[in-house]
Amino acid sequence: MNFASDNGAGVAPAILEAIVASSRVNAPAYGADAYTARAETLLSEVFEKQVTTFLVSTGTAANALALSALARPWEAIFCHEESHINDDECGAPELFAAGAKLVGISGLAGKMTAEAFAETLARYPRGLVKASQPGALSLSQGTEAGTLYTPEEIATLASLAHEAAIGVHMDGARFANAIVRLKATPADMTWRAGVDVLSFGATKNGALACEAVVFFDADKAGQFAFQRKRGGHTLSKGRFLGAQMVGYLTDGLWLDNARRANWREAGAKFHDWPTRALASELAPGPEETVLRLVTSFETSQDEIDALIAIAQRA
Amino acid sequence: MNFASDNGAGVAPAILEAIVASSRVNAPAYGADAYTARAETLLSEVFEKQVTTFLVSTGTAANALALSALARPWEAIFCHEESHINDDECGAPELFAAGAKLVGISGLAGKMTAEAFAETLARYPRGLVKASQPGALSLSQGTEAGTLYTPEEIATLASLAHEAAIGVHMDGARFANAIVRLKATPADMTWRAGVDVLSFGATKNGALACEAVVFFDADKAGQFAFQRKRGGHTLSKGRFLGAQMVGYLTDGLWLDNARRANWREAGAKFHDWPTRALASELAPGPEETVLRLVTSFETSQDEIDALIAIAQRA
Amino acid sequence: MNFASDNGAGVAPAILEAIVASSRVNAPAYGADAYTARAETLLSEVFEKQVTTFLVSTGTAANALALSALARPWEAIFCHEESHINDDECGAPELFAAGAKLVGISGLAGKMTAEAFAETLARYPRGLVKASQPGALSLSQGTEAGTLYTPEEIATLASLAHEAAIGVHMDGARFANAIVRLKATPADMTWRAGVDVLSFGATKNGALACEAVVFFDADKAGQFAFQRKRGGHTLSKGRFLGAQMVGYLTDGLWLDNARRANWREAGAKFHDWPTRALASELAPGPEETVLRLVTSFETSQDEIDALIAIAQRA
Amino acid sequence: MNFASDNGAGVAPAILEAIVASSRVNAPAYGADAYTARAETLLSEVFEKQVTTFLVSTGTAANALALSALARPWEAIFCHEESHINDDECGAPELFAAGAKLVGISGLAGKMTAEAFAETLARYPRGLVKASQPGALSLSQGTEAGTLYTPEEIATLASLAHEAAIGVHMDGARFANAIVRLKATPADMTWRAGVDVLSFGATKNGALACEAVVFFDADKAGQFAFQRKRGGHTLSKGRFLGAQMVGYLTDGLWLDNARRANWREAGAKFHDWPTRALASELAPGPEETVLRLVTSFETSQDEIDALIAIAQRA
Repeated sequence: MNFASDNGAGVAPAILEAIVASSRVNAPAYGADAYTARAETLLSEVFEKQVTTFLVSTGTAANALALSALARPWEAIFCHEESHINDDECGAPELFAAGAKLVGISGLAGKMTAEAFAETLARYPRGLVKASQPGALSLSQGTEAGTLYTPEEIATLASLAHEAAIGVHMDGARFANAIVRLKATPADMTWRAGVDVLSFGATKNGALACEAVVFFDADKAGQFAFQRKRGGHTLSKGRFLGAQMVGYLTDGLWLDNARRANWREAGAKFHDWPTRALASELAPGPEETVLRLVTSFETSQDEIDALIAIAQRA
Repeated sequence: MNFASDNGAGVAPAILEAIVASSRVNAPAYGADAYTARAETLLSEVFEKQVTTFLVSTGTAANALALSALARPWEAIFCHEESHINDDECGAPELFAAGAKLVGISGLAGKMTAEAFAETLARYPRGLVKASQPGALSLSQGTEAGTLYTPEEIATLASLAHEAAIGVHMDGARFANAIVRLKATPADMTWRAGVDVLSFGATKNGALACEAVVFFDADKAGQFAFQRKRGGHTLSKGRFLGAQMVGYLTDGLWLDNARRANWREAGAKFHDWPTRALASELAPGPEETVLRLVTSFETSQDEIDALIAIAQRA
Repeated sequence: MNFASDNGAGVAPAILEAIVASSRVNAPAYGADAYTARAETLLSEVFEKQVTTFLVSTGTAANALALSALARPWEAIFCHEESHINDDECGAPELFAAGAKLVGISGLAGKMTAEAFAETLARYPRGLVKASQPGALSLSQGTEAGTLYTPEEIATLASLAHEAAIGVHMDGARFANAIVRLKATPADMTWRAGVDVLSFGATKNGALACEAVVFFDADKAGQFAFQRKRGGHTLSKGRFLGAQMVGYLTDGLWLDNARRANWREAGAKFHDWPTRALASELAPGPEETVLRLVTSFETSQDEIDALIAIAQRA
Repeated sequence: MNFASDNGAGVAPAILEAIVASSRVNAPAYGADAYTARAETLLSEVFEKQVTTFLVSTGTAANALALSALARPWEAIFCHEESHINDDECGAPELFAAGAKLVGISGLAGKMTAEAFAETLARYPRGLVKASQPGALSLSQGTEAGTLYTPEEIATLASLAHEAAIGVHMDGARFANAIVRLKATPADMTWRAGVDVLSFGATKNGALACEAVVFFDADKAGQFAFQRKRGGHTLSKGRFLGAQMVGYLTDGLWLDNARRANWREAGAKFHDWPTRALASELAPGPEETVLRLVTSFETSQDEIDALIAIAQRA
């Protein structure tokens, strides 16, 4: 019974089978294979739009590379101050974006408000040479605190970004979980709301090691193949990334896995993240401790029942 | 029948089985698992020395990260001008080593001579502020031309490097093939000859996506965990890298696979690489074309027979 | 009458004379000249300690290069969120430190408290691979808000930094003004309080374009000559930087100039900087506007009188 | 009598006077002053074209920044293998171009031939993901060997570059000397022959520390103000760069100074640079030594006479 992280889980059986099956053929190298092409087709169906996609093996790579496609070295990447890209990637965005500056914006429960973003943007006026220039907005869906942006909130933030002539990235390491909880379509939660590039995660939700960088506008992807290669993130046997993503998206596996992990909707109340900026009504009292409980597609109902029983006894 | 590249092959059955088996357990994330620990133990046995290892999923990542552990941004990395790191990695070493300069050294059949290296070193005097400072020597074993350095040649080159107070990296993307052909021990071909860091490849020889960065001196690895993470190369489900490497090194699979790929020793003569600097006696005549034929652990004797038959008819 | 910035001023006559005089001789290039050597001797006298110094032509270069000597690419540089290095250098520290992350710490009137620094440090635990590692502390003396740290405050902050095994940088673009106002010795305000590297500014206080990077521990300066050259900041006719610094430090010119600019001590009260985080008792009321008035060594008493008269009429 | 380098010289009196005169006024900071504007006007006259210019204080900064405006991090910068940017700038181009790869091309007497450039270009096919992409061509005029490209040679090389869709940079650290010797107009030697960006040097020919980055197409300069600032190369008292350049270009000083330094045309034969690739008819015999004698605008006829007398006696 492990609620500490969703990285300890193994691989969903259907994805493992897809890997094994794809190993039997001789496939072109470096992502020119049929599995990878099929993955792009499936992602285009999921997003109701022809998308341009690149598969990589970690979420950090997906995020950092996506940001390097949006922001130039002398520009600023706006994000929540507790976001994964700012706090948990050991400087990967700065490496891939050649020193672009991450500007953390505070906000309750892992979310930035439109007001806070607008105020921050105002401190980075375009053309003021001494200031880092506006480069990109990055939103996490869901956030590190387990909260979500509504499509309307995303649209408002993205609209501010586009007015400032910068692109919008979404860190969707747990995108499937967000979809299941929000009951929004993938399209509504991304490009229809103004997202330009998405890190579409599969690893935390059943894959071995597979994330897609999804460009909703092919023009923005122009140099990405070189950026990925230069980052050492172009797998020679790329068909294994393609096979994972195909397995993940086939027969709704990605949503089924997310639904199982999202049992928290059924009534558990104790699972908010201990952020530095919890809303005051959520902050723990003097005798209380905040726990972060993370479920994965492998968490069983028995485990959940057991946990609840323990909690009730306490 | 595909002799164009060794990247089209699938995964060796034993490695695939290791992956599947390791998926059944809940394992600590980010490489803190038992498979990864076992891989380090096995690599220490292979090299007859306690080594410090880091697993990554591409050869480009292994090389570029290893070089970033040796060379500082204002330093020069000496390599053969046709080496993989110089010609085929889209600038990855420059990215990870923050702009260190790759200095290509010419030489017949993919190899640099001690004379050429010494002459190049002399043009980068330590302390001359305008010149990039000596940073690292990188040797490929085997080379892009399919040739090999003897342990004595490696020792001579490494000794020049150490006299210049720089470390020695070996790109061993096809290390197993080199071992089988040279009939030297892994220890003799690396640390006993002065190699400090090795990219030990498994992908081209049967793994799904797995390479080890092997440090023969733990002190040089001090910051590597951060460098790997920052490069987006720390897999959350790291046990799958560990399982691949364990499968690869168990029961001599890595050597068996290499022996099968090395059928060229049995008599085929037409498979040298078309380098820019082929020795004159090997250069093609006016009516001739040079072919590069690459075999892998999956190449069957039937394929080889068929190819030879075709060649004989021509 | 210009109180908007201290960059519009020309060059102090004595420094201009030093430049002209040094032009008459043939001097070794790249800083190997007698003027540069003399500047180091004078700086050693000012700081009561043998220091190792490098002259450059901008404050941004001095700061960014100094930080690159302290922090590695995967490390964090802690600074006030409104500091010049974070807000006004267009990402120069990130360029020179190869993507190191600037972590802005909030605080009233441009200063960080020991509590805030300690709390921030605690979020960057050494050895936690996902987090940027502690790299350097940078303090501005004086701050962007015109405030100063006392030697005791510096010592407390530096002591926290050293406990975390990181170096301390001081941005002294207006170091002379700070010295004059604090009535502390240069030694007390720097190395005796734990500062490891200082950007010692002269440009804003009468030089043409000259700043010294002052290392109080020669060991930390080991690679700086290469870093400066690689940044394009090694002047071929380096004697002109040396001559400026010699002129600046001779006969107390640097302190005299600072005293003239510091007339604010004589009674003016209206010149605090409009920071985002003014202490509430200093914040402007609904009908008030905060002005930043900057004086330089060229500001005359007449200009100040005229301004006061205007203010009194208003 | 110093023929070892042209960096030991002082400043031409007219330039020194321009600096002193410009110090008397209060001028806008960061290059928004009238001197800098006048310099751009004068450079536009020199080049018979409206140019966009940025002044910096070193040749290394001019070159590295200019290249960063042309080449992206995953691209290759083609240059002569003995060029200043490749051999003498301690990796500055790699720093400012975020790891772009300098590809050295061999050639006699510091010059690359069109054939050699075309052959090198062919090894960097656009779109081949594993290879660094074509990024820029950089030519030195004059070269490190003291030789020159004719406008026709430049046009041929630039035409190859433009066919490959890359920009052309010229390192004109000694541009004036080249103009005087070639008897070509500045326009013919640059933009009419296809040069896109020029490092126009003044320091080696009489300035204190001043080089202009000259863009012949304003579109290519779009981000340069940020790149320069981020490099720490935007002087706060920018008027002093403007004043130097105005003094340099007024009344033909720049050409007069170059003519005086170019006395070599008058008959001396012994001053070619000892390159690794001297044409065989120029290579020293067994008893001979190659000397590099460098003159500057300050070299007097007496010094030259004395040297010749010494040489004749020897």
